[in-house]
Amino acid sequence: MTTRRVVAFGGGHGLSASLRALRHCAPELDLDITAVVTVGDDGGSSGRLRAERGGLPPGDLRQALVALAGDHPATRRSAGLFQHRFAAAVAGVPEQGSGGSGPAVGDGPGDGGAARSDGLAGHAVGNLVLCGLMELLGDPVAALEHAGAMLGAVGRVLPMSRQPVGIEAQVRGADPAAPDEVRTLRGQHQVAVTTGRVEALRLTPAAPAACAEALAAIGAADWLIFGPGSWYTSVLPHLLVPQLADAIVSSPARRLVTLNLAAEKETLGLSVADHLAALRWYLPELKVDLVLADAKAVGDPEPVERAAESLGARLVLAPVAVTDDTPRHDPVALGAALVPVLGADR
Amino acid sequence: MTTRRVVAFGGGHGLSASLRALRHCAPELDLDITAVVTVGDDGGSSGRLRAERGGLPPGDLRQALVALAGDHPATRRSAGLFQHRFAAAVAGVPEQGSGGSGPAVGDGPGDGGAARSDGLAGHAVGNLVLCGLMELLGDPVAALEHAGAMLGAVGRVLPMSRQPVGIEAQVRGADPAAPDEVRTLRGQHQVAVTTGRVEALRLTPAAPAACAEALAAIGAADWLIFGPGSWYTSVLPHLLVPQLADAIVSSPARRLVTLNLAAEKETLGLSVADHLAALRWYLPELKVDLVLADAKAVGDPEPVERAAESLGARLVLAPVAVTDDTPRHDPVALGAALVPVLGADR
Repeated sequence: MTTRRVVAFGGGHGLSASLRALRHCAPELDLDITAVVTVGDDGGSSGRLRAERGGLPPGDLRQALVALAGDHPATRRSAGLFQHRFAAAVAGVPEQGSGGSGPAVGDGPGDGGAARSDGLAGHAVGNLVLCGLMELLGDPVAALEHAGAMLGAVGRVLPMSRQPVGIEAQVRGADPAAPDEVRTLRGQHQVAVTTGRVEALRLTPAAPAACAEALAAIGAADWLIFGPGSWYTSVLPHLLVPQLADAIVSSPARRLVTLNLAAEKETLGLSVADHLAALRWYLPELKVDLVLADAKAVGDPEPVERAAESLGARLVLAPVAVTDDTPRHDPVALGAALVPVLGADR
Repeated sequence: MTTRRVVAFGGGHGLSASLRALRHCAPELDLDITAVVTVGDDGGSSGRLRAERGGLPPGDLRQALVALAGDHPATRRSAGLFQHRFAAAVAGVPEQGSGGSGPAVGDGPGDGGAARSDGLAGHAVGNLVLCGLMELLGDPVAALEHAGAMLGAVGRVLPMSRQPVGIEAQVRGADPAAPDEVRTLRGQHQVAVTTGRVEALRLTPAAPAACAEALAAIGAADWLIFGPGSWYTSVLPHLLVPQLADAIVSSPARRLVTLNLAAEKETLGLSVADHLAALRWYLPELKVDLVLADAKAVGDPEPVERAAESLGARLVLAPVAVTDDTPRHDPVALGAALVPVLGADR
């Protein structure tokens, strides 16, 4: 069986769904999986680590690693550890042996049992592991390689850039009270949660250096896969890195776009067809071979077919959603849909 | 070759030295190594985690795991990760992509580059991993088993008790200005750094439940090894846990005491012979087979021989210190000295 080299772009839950689906193709296709992850996160645990320690925001990288974690019980448990989030600390927690055990216990007699932040609260253990590995090894790619080995990962996770990036958007109606006003929103978190209409997206710096290993993987790939995911904050940012855009356009690989099942906040005003138009708007040279979508989510396929054609792509409809009507991809169903797509001869 | 089951008691650097030495016996003896670790630490990273999260202080457990980590480059790197300590955070760290990337970046324009504590500073990554595993799995023994697997550990690490304990001491001359006054010092850290004379040592609670797996290991052992290590805070605490003391006294195993090379702060007033007398004072029923000491550190062997005899033991002198005159055990030399001892027939 010929190995098929697949590069999946994205970040967060969408990329996780894509990677989990690719793993379900493994019994039938011999896939060599590389995930290329956005490094624009500035919210939550990742945002705090990025702001205070200066490395890459680890959360999206962690999610991708966990999605690729091996099936052995020990690696499953390590994946659970990576995902475990510290709750708020309980200072002066009652413990039998604490009888005045020194200066480190609490701030005084009045704080017994009170929840408070000790700096760990909210951090996923995997974020701290990645942060420690990046500090220890001095390079995020080496850190991700080691973390992947810790999890028995069946594939490789790379950052789109070795430097963290900022995401900024011009948004019309960011303030619902001023629906026609255009504002600049700064930071992935702000852009991801806006219900206004994103009219322009950019990175800061505008042209971050792409991760060299990601460029090499793109150049050697058989398939490049975009989406699903938060379109402005997880899918499009890759196309805004000039070196990545060049590598994507010039790669001999075929290109697949997996569409979302429902609009997220940041894309509330966008139709399914608009998602494809956005790809073209930000990277006009992009040619796509296939667009994969859920028939039920698409509704009338005609405008989506037209939008796919404008990218040079054929639309493939398949049932890829979970069956409980929440807008989530089912990894097994998505994997089953991907097998004939990725396995087809050119 | 018959497997020899060895249980080593201690905490901190002394136990690490003992475990590293035991590993050096591995080519010649088929050892099954179990470390039983004090859980009284209340200083530094461990003390903060214990006080704020309520589990076992992880530092001494981490040190023991790292001492047993496998020789494969990947497990050596994971051991390095466990030992990596987060430095002080640098808030508002300059990063090219940070152009106002949201609310998480710093506290304001005035804090650029200032080192500060973000809650991670001072924590060893392995302490956070152990803390997360104990929360996730709900049991310190399961957490240590998984952490051991992560490090490819060639042996097992157990806590002496599943609950953290406090260490208290009556100390004469704790305040150098009042050399005859007896004070109660609370907490392992306070006891470890006092230069006064420890006149009585106790745990809080006085009779913590021993870890069942540790009791089983003691009952099945061929050798029980005490020391080297901080005598009052790492070696003697095990003898103060009633169930452990009973198991140690009634075990069919032979018993070895490895003496320290130099007095530490807490034992400044104690001679080498006094160290052996302290074992007997806190556990009068304790019988010892062998006492291993460095000839140079012992000086005149006669009083040490007499003290060993009072425990039923024979004194074995061997060069076990590093050669640079710092009072540290050399794992290779200590291992070489242990081979004939542990390998001898009864």
